[in-house]
Amino acid sequence: MLNHSYWNSKEPNGIEPAEKPHEECGVFGLYGDDVMPPAYAAYNGLLALQHRGQESCGIAVNDRGVVSYHKDMGLVSEVFHPKDLDKLSGQMCVSHVRYSTAGDSVPENAQPLVMRYIKGTLAIAHNGNLTNAHEIRRELEHRGAIFQTTIDSEVIAYIIARERMHSGSIEEAVRRTMPQIQGAYSLLVMSPQKLIAARDPNGFRPLCMGRLGKGYVFASETCALDACGAEFVRDVEPGEIVVVDPSGVKSIRDHCTGRISPCIFEYIYFARTDSVIDGVSVYEARKEAGRLLARQHPVEADLVIGVPESGIDAAIGYSEESGIPYEKGIVKNNYIGRTFIKPTQQERRNSVRIKLNPLVTAVKGKRIVMLDDSIVRGTTCDRIVSMLREAGAKEVHLRISSPPFTWPCYYGTDIPSKNELIACKMSVEEIGKLSGADSIGFLELDSLCQMIGKQEKCFCDACFTGNYPAPVPKHIMEGKPEQRCTPVHR
Amino acid sequence: MLNHSYWNSKEPNGIEPAEKPHEECGVFGLYGDDVMPPAYAAYNGLLALQHRGQESCGIAVNDRGVVSYHKDMGLVSEVFHPKDLDKLSGQMCVSHVRYSTAGDSVPENAQPLVMRYIKGTLAIAHNGNLTNAHEIRRELEHRGAIFQTTIDSEVIAYIIARERMHSGSIEEAVRRTMPQIQGAYSLLVMSPQKLIAARDPNGFRPLCMGRLGKGYVFASETCALDACGAEFVRDVEPGEIVVVDPSGVKSIRDHCTGRISPCIFEYIYFARTDSVIDGVSVYEARKEAGRLLARQHPVEADLVIGVPESGIDAAIGYSEESGIPYEKGIVKNNYIGRTFIKPTQQERRNSVRIKLNPLVTAVKGKRIVMLDDSIVRGTTCDRIVSMLREAGAKEVHLRISSPPFTWPCYYGTDIPSKNELIACKMSVEEIGKLSGADSIGFLELDSLCQMIGKQEKCFCDACFTGNYPAPVPKHIMEGKPEQRCTPVHR
Amino acid sequence: MLNHSYWNSKEPNGIEPAEKPHEECGVFGLYGDDVMPPAYAAYNGLLALQHRGQESCGIAVNDRGVVSYHKDMGLVSEVFHPKDLDKLSGQMCVSHVRYSTAGDSVPENAQPLVMRYIKGTLAIAHNGNLTNAHEIRRELEHRGAIFQTTIDSEVIAYIIARERMHSGSIEEAVRRTMPQIQGAYSLLVMSPQKLIAARDPNGFRPLCMGRLGKGYVFASETCALDACGAEFVRDVEPGEIVVVDPSGVKSIRDHCTGRISPCIFEYIYFARTDSVIDGVSVYEARKEAGRLLARQHPVEADLVIGVPESGIDAAIGYSEESGIPYEKGIVKNNYIGRTFIKPTQQERRNSVRIKLNPLVTAVKGKRIVMLDDSIVRGTTCDRIVSMLREAGAKEVHLRISSPPFTWPCYYGTDIPSKNELIACKMSVEEIGKLSGADSIGFLELDSLCQMIGKQEKCFCDACFTGNYPAPVPKHIMEGKPEQRCTPVHR
Amino acid sequence: MLNHSYWNSKEPNGIEPAEKPHEECGVFGLYGDDVMPPAYAAYNGLLALQHRGQESCGIAVNDRGVVSYHKDMGLVSEVFHPKDLDKLSGQMCVSHVRYSTAGDSVPENAQPLVMRYIKGTLAIAHNGNLTNAHEIRRELEHRGAIFQTTIDSEVIAYIIARERMHSGSIEEAVRRTMPQIQGAYSLLVMSPQKLIAARDPNGFRPLCMGRLGKGYVFASETCALDACGAEFVRDVEPGEIVVVDPSGVKSIRDHCTGRISPCIFEYIYFARTDSVIDGVSVYEARKEAGRLLARQHPVEADLVIGVPESGIDAAIGYSEESGIPYEKGIVKNNYIGRTFIKPTQQERRNSVRIKLNPLVTAVKGKRIVMLDDSIVRGTTCDRIVSMLREAGAKEVHLRISSPPFTWPCYYGTDIPSKNELIACKMSVEEIGKLSGADSIGFLELDSLCQMIGKQEKCFCDACFTGNYPAPVPKHIMEGKPEQRCTPVHR
Repeated sequence: MLNHSYWNSKEPNGIEPAEKPHEECGVFGLYGDDVMPPAYAAYNGLLALQHRGQESCGIAVNDRGVVSYHKDMGLVSEVFHPKDLDKLSGQMCVSHVRYSTAGDSVPENAQPLVMRYIKGTLAIAHNGNLTNAHEIRRELEHRGAIFQTTIDSEVIAYIIARERMHSGSIEEAVRRTMPQIQGAYSLLVMSPQKLIAARDPNGFRPLCMGRLGKGYVFASETCALDACGAEFVRDVEPGEIVVVDPSGVKSIRDHCTGRISPCIFEYIYFARTDSVIDGVSVYEARKEAGRLLARQHPVEADLVIGVPESGIDAAIGYSEESGIPYEKGIVKNNYIGRTFIKPTQQERRNSVRIKLNPLVTAVKGKRIVMLDDSIVRGTTCDRIVSMLREAGAKEVHLRISSPPFTWPCYYGTDIPSKNELIACKMSVEEIGKLSGADSIGFLELDSLCQMIGKQEKCFCDACFTGNYPAPVPKHIMEGKPEQRCTPVHR
Repeated sequence: MLNHSYWNSKEPNGIEPAEKPHEECGVFGLYGDDVMPPAYAAYNGLLALQHRGQESCGIAVNDRGVVSYHKDMGLVSEVFHPKDLDKLSGQMCVSHVRYSTAGDSVPENAQPLVMRYIKGTLAIAHNGNLTNAHEIRRELEHRGAIFQTTIDSEVIAYIIARERMHSGSIEEAVRRTMPQIQGAYSLLVMSPQKLIAARDPNGFRPLCMGRLGKGYVFASETCALDACGAEFVRDVEPGEIVVVDPSGVKSIRDHCTGRISPCIFEYIYFARTDSVIDGVSVYEARKEAGRLLARQHPVEADLVIGVPESGIDAAIGYSEESGIPYEKGIVKNNYIGRTFIKPTQQERRNSVRIKLNPLVTAVKGKRIVMLDDSIVRGTTCDRIVSMLREAGAKEVHLRISSPPFTWPCYYGTDIPSKNELIACKMSVEEIGKLSGADSIGFLELDSLCQMIGKQEKCFCDACFTGNYPAPVPKHIMEGKPEQRCTPVHR
Repeated sequence: MLNHSYWNSKEPNGIEPAEKPHEECGVFGLYGDDVMPPAYAAYNGLLALQHRGQESCGIAVNDRGVVSYHKDMGLVSEVFHPKDLDKLSGQMCVSHVRYSTAGDSVPENAQPLVMRYIKGTLAIAHNGNLTNAHEIRRELEHRGAIFQTTIDSEVIAYIIARERMHSGSIEEAVRRTMPQIQGAYSLLVMSPQKLIAARDPNGFRPLCMGRLGKGYVFASETCALDACGAEFVRDVEPGEIVVVDPSGVKSIRDHCTGRISPCIFEYIYFARTDSVIDGVSVYEARKEAGRLLARQHPVEADLVIGVPESGIDAAIGYSEESGIPYEKGIVKNNYIGRTFIKPTQQERRNSVRIKLNPLVTAVKGKRIVMLDDSIVRGTTCDRIVSMLREAGAKEVHLRISSPPFTWPCYYGTDIPSKNELIACKMSVEEIGKLSGADSIGFLELDSLCQMIGKQEKCFCDACFTGNYPAPVPKHIMEGKPEQRCTPVHR
Repeated sequence: MLNHSYWNSKEPNGIEPAEKPHEECGVFGLYGDDVMPPAYAAYNGLLALQHRGQESCGIAVNDRGVVSYHKDMGLVSEVFHPKDLDKLSGQMCVSHVRYSTAGDSVPENAQPLVMRYIKGTLAIAHNGNLTNAHEIRRELEHRGAIFQTTIDSEVIAYIIARERMHSGSIEEAVRRTMPQIQGAYSLLVMSPQKLIAARDPNGFRPLCMGRLGKGYVFASETCALDACGAEFVRDVEPGEIVVVDPSGVKSIRDHCTGRISPCIFEYIYFARTDSVIDGVSVYEARKEAGRLLARQHPVEADLVIGVPESGIDAAIGYSEESGIPYEKGIVKNNYIGRTFIKPTQQERRNSVRIKLNPLVTAVKGKRIVMLDDSIVRGTTCDRIVSMLREAGAKEVHLRISSPPFTWPCYYGTDIPSKNELIACKMSVEEIGKLSGADSIGFLELDSLCQMIGKQEKCFCDACFTGNYPAPVPKHIMEGKPEQRCTPVHR
């Protein structure tokens, strides 16, 4: 019989650890209410951006200068009920979805951050990660600042508030703020009269602009424009500030340097496949990765399958290029929820089969090429390969539509430290052997340009190369800086 | 500005009506605890069966004759927490997921039904719909019975209790019960000592049997066996009773008539694609439907896409047969939740785009064949077709992997009455015109046999033909019998 | 430091065990809606009856023959929100509050029980305890009955349903039911057309009748009439059935035997002090008990105090009779809630001081007479006495406004078995010594008549005498019958 | 029949408006863990202080320098579960209960405020109201501060953080902070190493100190010391700062001016009757008020009653002085909850009778003196008087144990503006007439000294006299300052 230590003590609450890297946020804002109430547009937009963050979410609206907001832990569909949306009347909004990291998963950290400063109320929603947040906090603390959250938005809010004292306008304050903050940020700021969007000069995280009736929308991805019925206008340029107010739209490009480096992993995994980021279709990039893999790592096989959902696009591309038929070989259960209960006694193999189940009739006796988007810790690919073998697959050839991860990310994703990355500890051959696959092939680093249809490198691939396009302080590179510089409370 | 009648009054709570027919339940039972605690097996099994019912769920366990249970409204991942599973210790279990119908969505109707009768405690989980429940209720009421729920399990429980008085065993009572109940049922009964599975003589709803260590599992679909790590043994035969107790497994086949008629729509839509029902792979049946459509309704086109998720398998089959490349043309948002908020003001078109978004880069300028599994009320296909056209599709050819619905179902699904079925009101041509597609093609009725690889008809296709293999009382055929024979309370 | 076994393992969840006996239920019903909607009247009435049961509550309304209901675990103020009451439209209602016993604290047991039988829908609310429920269940099970709850209402429902088949009316069925059920019951039955109240021939539990506009109210206590603005009409007579329907009010007195025995402990502790039961003011009875104690157990003292809330009325009486000034000597914290968290490490003395705190300035240096209503297990009086001593009391004289408990109750309260009753194990002197009081005095058994102003005994005092006025089956007297005759599930 | 505008539109949600003034907070802190874990002590202490605030509550603990906290909307018994307390391990704590005002009832405003500043983490709990918070906010905003809440604690935190930069210790920073903040504050500050208590120089709000084992406790009232088993040591002096750290206890008295003015209304109504504030027993003060009233406003009568709970102590005093017997004349329902649902249709009279019900047998035919603590808006006393008359009272003489309210309070209670105070609009005679009482008498202003046993005035009675002992800015006196100076969001 079971005792009460039945649950795996290494995984508190019996909850499965994350197997893929995570984006840390998504933002959505709307100026204008002629088509629909901004809170409803935000609700639709956040639903479309939910893949970028499932921990908490929030909407702040501005009703003729008076800001109200609703935010809480949970999915968009859990946090917002019709009565909540109805209460959030206004003519513009900013909103946010946040990813659940293990550390500071607290209501205080939900966004947008709504705060009062000298010129009234500001609401700020932020996607990205500042690399000098620690230094700024220290400096602000030396001037008497207090911090109630551990989110970068609070740091940004302080600098904007400080700059606003010497600036003639909120946009000028944002313009003065940008040189002071380093790293990745796609930012929405709502003041009593204006909606402002800003993107860091590298353009690490995406940010696009659309039109909804007479109003303007800003969102992390174009799929959020589609969801609220907005027309895509253009991407916010890296370094650009876009201001919308009663007088119309204005662009400030002082910080546009041209040395842009949007995150390549948005194309590989983070973004929704139907989004178009900086002019490149995510879906086409993924299919192209599959085609490239078919040329780089060809193999004789009977069918091509993808690990759902993220491996499917590359699988279609591989099939197209190789002529090997595409098949659905694995079925994913969409009802698992965020807190899947996993008893320790249950074999690891079974645990995967609750989420992913092979289509025996499709794979039995077949030589299979299986596409996946990436390998981080290497904890699941062996389970999937052996699951297919048990289902009767004669051969399993693993193709990964990205190069091996060898460096952590400091720009707003949770790609972990080197000692957790399997590709830092093993060669490709060893990873292949560990996975149990008959062969393994990663996308070549050189082909990332081609994947997104560019002639030359114009993106951040630091997680594959260690070439960090924006400075990362030494203390961050060396350790766990967050534990040194942020309040430790729950 | 908006007033408080902003919500569509026809759709209370702003919740979208169902666009596809629904299965009404799924069952899972385990006898034996040598591999894992039965409650954990049930949890895994119910997660795998969640597509069969999302309203409520429950698990009843039997710990050396003492039954305890936990059931509630909500998804499996919402209703069960580790502490709940830990409390449910035992050596066997029965469990259930229930579909949310508009009518009696009340906690009382959650299953398993646990009740005390002359021989102790019984727990009953039931998938299907009795066609003579009304008659039996009336007859039982004439003998003094009282009813506290509106579920058929309560009717079955009464008859079993009555028959048990004249029977030497619980299985004998179940055997005597079966001739008295008509319609569709796949039934699990847990007595203090035994676990019993029974399937109606027509075999309308699926029920299979597996082995988990030394124990035995019964489940609506094989995907639930996979999820708990059980080996598939065989299907429970239509009309068969299988009894598991300390002495082993026993089969009672008195009611096996050979005139079986499992539901064909399980293959077309209800079941999970990785299940194998009565020897036929659901995935292969769906792909075959696609292949058949490619032969029955060929068209020149650039690519084949499926409406996610249910149209994708047939799309792969159509692509395979026609040689037209398969593409992912539409992306589905998995975060919508069960209570999507839809403002009336928002155009119908947008509402669909929150759930389904076209991959513009894939479909632009292309001639498209789009596969869907069925058309019930005809309320969404036009929106999807026009969404594709707006995304730039040159042509859209609609292919439906089932014949037109022309008759309601009385055997445990919610295919509605004739006046709601579009194919009862319009010809195929008219439906095509309404949809806005360039062409439309339904799977031919005659090819259903071939779809599941059979020589002759051995299934129920009443929803397409009106040939009901088990008697349906006239009063049910004519009206809304539930309002006459069941308690009206919430 | 503390480990995780900090909580007292003997008291699961750190919840304090009950220190006073508990009533098991309260009922409220209204026929008529001219003054206010019945659900609102029930809400007010149940709030007034909440002291009779805090586990679960429910309201069933009848809207022109259609019954709807809402019930759940929790207090009235927690279970019902305005939207719930608004949904419960109708022209009559029955409602219920239930006490939380340790055993079957499950949602299924919440009342009213709403069920469908041959003549339509019935809703039943019941206060009391049948002594032959076990026998009836067995007999009904032999006829094929199934039981889904462990409440007596289900047993009563079955008999009414059976009798209804041979009766011309629901009231006739109730009339035929009464001789078959033994023990204590104050019963409300709502049929499609009628509201029926019935009280057992002994009249163990109270039941009164009032007028609200043109309608009629029934309630366990008159305080519920006051709360909804109804005028008191009269008590329902022991053995009487009162029927209200469109034709007016009708009384059936066949079972009125005159051998009545209402529960004396309602006056001592259970009922609310502002209620009048069977013509006797509860408050006056309690004050009279205090006066009697002053005569039976006089003592020289400086002040009289009562243990809040139940000891205060007797204290006022004692003061009045003795001339010793009444003082508030102990303050009660009303915010403790039902789930007070008690760490084991904390001394028992402190635990009591969170609930009850002495008024040091009032008691310091004083000789005190302290009134309490009863001593059951004897677990708290010593703590209160020593608390007063620590606050500086010079003497503490304990006066108990009831005789010692020496017998369990089988008629609907939870006065426990003899081996838990301290007065079965110790003499009055020993109890006094244990309590640490300078003197102790219980109300004399003979003065109970005088307490309620009667010439002769006309009540049940079985808990003090063992003279059970209605038969109690031997198996119940001897053991733990509930574990033998009821379903064991949670 | 009822329509959906059944609810009174003037009282949203059907919730009764407050009829008594409210305290705005209670604080509790403990340094030391030798007797019990600080979180448990706080839990007990907050339960005892719950009458000071029922909107939200929180506990912050310090575990060797690391602060964790748990706070939420709701009662102490609702917000804290054993698992929450177990997680809050530490060696010291600060904690808080907050009153629910209509305005900013938001989770953000729950206390303690936990924040990070230059020297680490601070947790602050505050009872009182700063009169210059607006000015400080403006000044801080001019220096770049941002505000995320509308509570004074955030203002105090900023000043402490600023002063800490120029101070050698946290207590020095608190010392420098005090001259900058005006108005009422009883403050607890927990730094990584120290627990600090500070009380404003006027001593408006109470704050006492106790000993628990080797540790020290601070609490708003002595009843909280009793609840956690601590010994009372002394009151924190107005203007005093008490510091507890590993080296022991230290007192800083620089700001002790001797011009103290504790709130007289703490004795009349706010504090718990078993507390002793600044050396005066609350209970004795209340009884003395009753005695004084008996001398100031004698009347021939048969009995004295108090409006529960707050009028009872004065009634006992009046009875003692006058010789007229004390009686319980009105019974209070303790189960109403914080959100009593009041239908408009229901007469106002009934609404009161759900909360307060007369003891008919006690009051019938009697001449009654009824004691209440205060009259604010005058909205309920007429209902209680007429309720007694209907119950048969021959005469009702109203005695109020405080002078008439004629001025608002700016020091941390919600005594409202003059145009809501009935005594600003009517003479005592008119109030008496309005109430329907046969006579009315307020406590004379001059006797407040005597009430608390002092020779001369040493308290704040601004609400009766308009003599504000601490400066109140003109803009606050004139209007609704909160709407001008605080963020407007929910």
